[in-house]
Amino acid sequence: MSTSTTYEKLPLQPLFDTIEELKPKFIERLQKAISIPSVSSDESLRPKVVEMANFLVGELKTLGFTDIQLKELGTQPPPVQDTNLQLPPIVLGRFGNDPSKKTVLVYGHYDVQPALKDDGWNTEPFTMHYDKEKEILYGRGSTDDKGPVVGWLNVIEAHNKLGWELPVNLVVCFEGMEESGSLGLDELVAKEAQNYFKKVDQVTISDNYWLGTTKPVLTYGLRGCNYYQIIIEGPGADLHSGIFGGIIAEPMTDLVKVMSTLVDGSGKILIPGVSDMVAPVTDKEDQLYDSIDFSVEELNAASGSKTSLHDNKKDILKHRWRFPSLSLHGIEGAFSGAGAKTVIPAKVIGKFSIRTVPDIESKKLDELVFQHITSEFKKLNSPNKFKVELIHDGNYWVSDPFNDSFTAAAKATQDVWNVVPDFTREGGSIPITLTFEKELGVDVLLLPMGRGDDGAHSINEKLDVVNYINGCKTLGGYLHYYGKA
Amino acid sequence: MSTSTTYEKLPLQPLFDTIEELKPKFIERLQKAISIPSVSSDESLRPKVVEMANFLVGELKTLGFTDIQLKELGTQPPPVQDTNLQLPPIVLGRFGNDPSKKTVLVYGHYDVQPALKDDGWNTEPFTMHYDKEKEILYGRGSTDDKGPVVGWLNVIEAHNKLGWELPVNLVVCFEGMEESGSLGLDELVAKEAQNYFKKVDQVTISDNYWLGTTKPVLTYGLRGCNYYQIIIEGPGADLHSGIFGGIIAEPMTDLVKVMSTLVDGSGKILIPGVSDMVAPVTDKEDQLYDSIDFSVEELNAASGSKTSLHDNKKDILKHRWRFPSLSLHGIEGAFSGAGAKTVIPAKVIGKFSIRTVPDIESKKLDELVFQHITSEFKKLNSPNKFKVELIHDGNYWVSDPFNDSFTAAAKATQDVWNVVPDFTREGGSIPITLTFEKELGVDVLLLPMGRGDDGAHSINEKLDVVNYINGCKTLGGYLHYYGKA
Repeated sequence: MSTSTTYEKLPLQPLFDTIEELKPKFIERLQKAISIPSVSSDESLRPKVVEMANFLVGELKTLGFTDIQLKELGTQPPPVQDTNLQLPPIVLGRFGNDPSKKTVLVYGHYDVQPALKDDGWNTEPFTMHYDKEKEILYGRGSTDDKGPVVGWLNVIEAHNKLGWELPVNLVVCFEGMEESGSLGLDELVAKEAQNYFKKVDQVTISDNYWLGTTKPVLTYGLRGCNYYQIIIEGPGADLHSGIFGGIIAEPMTDLVKVMSTLVDGSGKILIPGVSDMVAPVTDKEDQLYDSIDFSVEELNAASGSKTSLHDNKKDILKHRWRFPSLSLHGIEGAFSGAGAKTVIPAKVIGKFSIRTVPDIESKKLDELVFQHITSEFKKLNSPNKFKVELIHDGNYWVSDPFNDSFTAAAKATQDVWNVVPDFTREGGSIPITLTFEKELGVDVLLLPMGRGDDGAHSINEKLDVVNYINGCKTLGGYLHYYGKA
Repeated sequence: MSTSTTYEKLPLQPLFDTIEELKPKFIERLQKAISIPSVSSDESLRPKVVEMANFLVGELKTLGFTDIQLKELGTQPPPVQDTNLQLPPIVLGRFGNDPSKKTVLVYGHYDVQPALKDDGWNTEPFTMHYDKEKEILYGRGSTDDKGPVVGWLNVIEAHNKLGWELPVNLVVCFEGMEESGSLGLDELVAKEAQNYFKKVDQVTISDNYWLGTTKPVLTYGLRGCNYYQIIIEGPGADLHSGIFGGIIAEPMTDLVKVMSTLVDGSGKILIPGVSDMVAPVTDKEDQLYDSIDFSVEELNAASGSKTSLHDNKKDILKHRWRFPSLSLHGIEGAFSGAGAKTVIPAKVIGKFSIRTVPDIESKKLDELVFQHITSEFKKLNSPNKFKVELIHDGNYWVSDPFNDSFTAAAKATQDVWNVVPDFTREGGSIPITLTFEKELGVDVLLLPMGRGDDGAHSINEKLDVVNYINGCKTLGGYLHYYGKA
């Protein structure tokens, strides 16, 4: 794709101007959100998570949302310190209920990762720091995900100020446990699919990031992940290698042999049949990679090494997004400390996972994995006990980057940033994407606001002012183009 | 070998009778020794370790030892809580100094492993429990190594009572840090080789165990141990497998490949050249294995599994004692916890060791290991950084089981137990054996007193009364046969 495409532009300049005008107020809104330390993983801060839910409810009310509900999810399951700990509520609200308009559900989360100044932050993480020279807003949650969440509210406020009608009905769904496993969310979505979410036509999520730091992206795919363990068990207890070395079949010997047959040094998965399931890359899809802003140097910078398996942008991106990969994570039960311990571990558990892509069928993959590993173990003629099992799986997700929603987002992005966005995937997974797609039976769009270097789970998390404000314009513009589509 | 051999018996019955007569006193001596909790690894109990040294000095004085010395070893090196912690002294003493007699050095240790009743002991570990029905003495240190240490003193007492002259000059060397790395001992032995230990002809150590529970053994060999680590380093920090899986060379993939080339499932070492260094088993040596009291069932009971690599006694024992083995101990730096973590470990360190036997030359083995692993890593064409290194080594030890000392011990054993002892080796190492051999340039004999099921480092450590008393007779008889040889 080229740096611009032609399309019929909508007259959105008044909206964009109003958003610019409201910039100080929008920054203040984000500052307020950041000031509430809604850390979902810290039980002692649970009241702050609830306070953050109530803050959002207040904003929704002020902006004219209706049918606002705090969906309680009950008690948090173990492990917890406080066995009566309540899960934070899910905030639901509607803006508009016009049957002639499409309905867009926007999802975001109002909880954040933990943060302490002592972790290495330059400023207090829960006091927004506005660096006016660099035009950057620092603070925990600035980019993940309070910026995007209040971004949607800002879009409504701008419409209200202009006296414009919203081009779609908007449903918001904000959760408070995203950083802690989204406990209760799947059940809520399933339950509300035919209730609160009944008329939803499209789900849009702004909770990921640009690939790099300069070019906006739209994300249309995520890899899945099947995580396995190989359990090999021999003696009744750990043994001394002086006494038993050479006379018993050692589980580690077997495990290392089996693990060595899974993937080669070039990253090629050696389990027969897995590659055959990968859908061929179409020409149209292939072209999407041409214009994407990325380089081997960026990968090297990110990995802190020169260990790239590929020497060009397209291969790197395809292997990150489009092809499966297999990683050996480690071994439970073996000696893992520093120094030298002369132990023969009695029971060892090898851990590995496969990142999945279209059209790898999860159950079929399990079969191939079990078959291959069982056959490799059999070759060893070992007297040890052996088992291979799936620990968890999560399907890949891929959308049509040429559908109405993506096309609308692409036009809005070009209006705002004056560049055609890159169409990206991500190598990791965002399970809620699949949940919405499955339960609601609609398309999902990932429309990120922040940059690849925002440090979402790191110290000095930030959101550039231009990303925040242009992000609001893009979200707003997207609703207009999608409403017209 | 048969169950008896013919030899000229010495008239030792009066000695054996006297030892029987003194049994109550000998049991009392052991009870006193056990009552002092001389745990060398517990800094707070260091005064008790010193008290135990002083107890031995008192006994030596009473028995008529001369030139008794407490050799101070200085401050214990870090890591310690108390930076002024003094090492326990080494107790030296002589009995007899007749230039016409041979001089035997006996080594033992007066410190013990930690023990708490709560660990699962049936009785207080530091209060000797005499089970008169089973004729067993329970208590920490009963078999490791206070029984044998006071056993040597009992031999002197019996000679004194009989009015017999000792057939050899005896030098005792009792240390108090054996269970904590024998700190300071190597230096002391080297320093005294030409001083206190100048005229020593033979070193005899009673600090190991019968192979089983019914047949006495003499131990003439120990395997050595070379411990290695393979370090493979890629990215600058641990990475997320969703984002980096498939696009960078993962250190775990490389490490598992390399580790899988070291040993096969049958225990065969795959590093070229290692097996070639192993000395062939001579016929005479091979015959030593015939009569040894051991079975596959005993191995299974000990390992708590049916994972034996060999189906007969001789192969098991040869692979435990006579052939090298390679054990993969584990991996440092990889994921080692429970559950599922989608990490690509940045730096992984594979640990393995090789048990060595005659004629494996340690330095040559290192070369072969480095060469093989370097060549296997090169085959991977990996961009990751790689290093292989030796963490520590310790040579094998093997003595001539037909020399004067072993022959004397065999005769004494047959006098006392009415059976020819098994000639055994051990798979593990006892480093002090090598130190004495090297520094003093004399043969070493390992002459155990306790049984294979004494639970030396375990709960309910015990010494059968018959092993204690017959052990004293054997030690005494040994000195006579050796003195005459």
